[in-house]
Amino acid sequence: MVKTRRVAIIGAGNGGHAAAFELAQKGFAVHLCDIDEKVIDGIRNLGGIQATGRFEGFAKIALLTTDIREAIEGVEAILPMVPRYAHRSIAQELASCLRGHEHLLLCPGSTLGEVEFAKTLRENGRDQPVSTVATLPYACRLKEPGRVSISLITKTLLFASFPAKDTEEEARFFSALFPTISEMSNGLEVGLNNGNPVTHPVPTLLNAARIERGERFLFYREGVTASVARINQKLDEERMALCRTLGFRTISLTERLFLTGYADRIYETPLEAYHRSEAFAPILAPTNLHDRYLFEDVPYGLVTFASIGERLGVPTPTMRLIVNLAAEVTGVDFWKEGMTLSRLGLGGLDRFDLLRFMEEGRSPAVTW
Amino acid sequence: MVKTRRVAIIGAGNGGHAAAFELAQKGFAVHLCDIDEKVIDGIRNLGGIQATGRFEGFAKIALLTTDIREAIEGVEAILPMVPRYAHRSIAQELASCLRGHEHLLLCPGSTLGEVEFAKTLRENGRDQPVSTVATLPYACRLKEPGRVSISLITKTLLFASFPAKDTEEEARFFSALFPTISEMSNGLEVGLNNGNPVTHPVPTLLNAARIERGERFLFYREGVTASVARINQKLDEERMALCRTLGFRTISLTERLFLTGYADRIYETPLEAYHRSEAFAPILAPTNLHDRYLFEDVPYGLVTFASIGERLGVPTPTMRLIVNLAAEVTGVDFWKEGMTLSRLGLGGLDRFDLLRFMEEGRSPAVTW
Repeated sequence: MVKTRRVAIIGAGNGGHAAAFELAQKGFAVHLCDIDEKVIDGIRNLGGIQATGRFEGFAKIALLTTDIREAIEGVEAILPMVPRYAHRSIAQELASCLRGHEHLLLCPGSTLGEVEFAKTLRENGRDQPVSTVATLPYACRLKEPGRVSISLITKTLLFASFPAKDTEEEARFFSALFPTISEMSNGLEVGLNNGNPVTHPVPTLLNAARIERGERFLFYREGVTASVARINQKLDEERMALCRTLGFRTISLTERLFLTGYADRIYETPLEAYHRSEAFAPILAPTNLHDRYLFEDVPYGLVTFASIGERLGVPTPTMRLIVNLAAEVTGVDFWKEGMTLSRLGLGGLDRFDLLRFMEEGRSPAVTW
Repeated sequence: MVKTRRVAIIGAGNGGHAAAFELAQKGFAVHLCDIDEKVIDGIRNLGGIQATGRFEGFAKIALLTTDIREAIEGVEAILPMVPRYAHRSIAQELASCLRGHEHLLLCPGSTLGEVEFAKTLRENGRDQPVSTVATLPYACRLKEPGRVSISLITKTLLFASFPAKDTEEEARFFSALFPTISEMSNGLEVGLNNGNPVTHPVPTLLNAARIERGERFLFYREGVTASVARINQKLDEERMALCRTLGFRTISLTERLFLTGYADRIYETPLEAYHRSEAFAPILAPTNLHDRYLFEDVPYGLVTFASIGERLGVPTPTMRLIVNLAAEVTGVDFWKEGMTLSRLGLGGLDRFDLLRFMEEGRSPAVTW
């Protein structure tokens, strides 16, 4: 086995910067790719990535590029580290240049991102397993191109592959990159533990006016109050009901924050967790409403959760309320734009067919 | 006709103070009543009411009391000037001491307040017409007991009586007190022009976190942004659809602000009206969520509107969304607590029966 393994990271945002730094530090040759030339040039000018915060240091990046084809040349693993809504176009681009032996990990995969990714690859002639983790491996903020502040390395990375029959083998490979990955039964279980749709939209909406005015305030410390957290908890209960119905572990929001390392203990309520955990303390609110806190977490989170609920007969009234409110606030019909089981071609499956499909990646009732 | 007419005002809040001042200035002998002894004592210590703002002056109040029975002794008119949710208990108290000749005006009556008031009186053995206006006759703020700042006298007071066959006679009487009253076809038309349910809940909810934290900010100037005003406008369109279906005039929010004098012209959008009209400029947000902006305007406004919509087959999806959101934020089931046609005993009436009932005050299908 060669010592220097090559890894491509697609997307040089907060997470892409942090992963590029950490994997390069660990001895991987990192290819970092972003569509934004200014970002790539900024990193190139520094000669690599400077990390501050909990992990101080500098790491050289083997290859910096805006060209996906160049980025994945000779790599063993490809890590798209982009918002959920960018998955489809990246899968389309990758399909034309994959060799077939690369390990793919959506990092994170949001909810059912790996299914849409695999579907897009297949529709473009490629058939490879796609793995997913439930959260970014870091709490981090990009300060400027080439400079990232990392405040936390996630303690547990919930992991699965699509199809899930490949999870064990893929986990063996990816644990060299991320030793904290923890296998789950399938990507649906991972995706239902994507905490963002429970956490982000409600504080965004119940602070919509000041966000729209561009006022700066602390998202968790100032923007989350008792009633905000109570609605988050209701969303979390609906999410856990979906998990229970599918026979998955039910990990509450507060338990997950402890598992991942965002909280030092399991706080009794979401409000306590948001207000006391150090990792949340410095996080500022978005500066406008056209933010992934709504445009990722509603159409690719709450809409997806609610569509699963509809299929399973599990009521999700609070999720539906928040989707409707986000639609009113932004003027975007998220029910139409968002990712539902039907849109993934899975609308005809019942609960057990859906679980079998997640395991095997094929079903007579699925046309792709 | 005696020169000095006696008028009882029940409730010494913002509006009660302003009306007591203005009517006393006009030469009426005002009896002012409030359940809060400290408020009555405060006014008594001053010897009357000091007004500032657009109308400067001092007026003596003929009688200050906490006892409704004493307050209405010898008066020709009784003006409950209280939040909508206090109507029922005041009607119960009044029923035991009314003489039968007093003119009653809910000032304002919110939505269908006059119907609930008349129903409560009848259930307690009294049968008198009850009139209503759509808004307070003033824009005013109480500074402390006895001191009120009046920034505006409303230019048009939409008025009707229940039953509406008495509107003309009651309007003749009340125009001596309020010369700007303008007759509408019935109380339902007045109540559907109660602008508060359209105006207040959305900015309250989309600023819920900072209100819950007790932060001070300008409700209209800072708390209303483009998306807030767009949702207000959707509520207003649903409200106007109700008016149209009932054959009423459709007065838009921006037109009403001009009619009442809150705006110096008819602004094109609610956002412009809220941001440009002087009357809104100084108004601060409530300091907590247990405020009439939610607890009056949702259960006695949006819930009532939506129940009328349901009866008439007029869709009110945005109203329903805002009611559901207010319920989530406060933890109160406003659909259960709020005032619906059914709760008023009017659930069995169709559109034309409802209009006839508002006119005549009786219907074979109504049991009270």
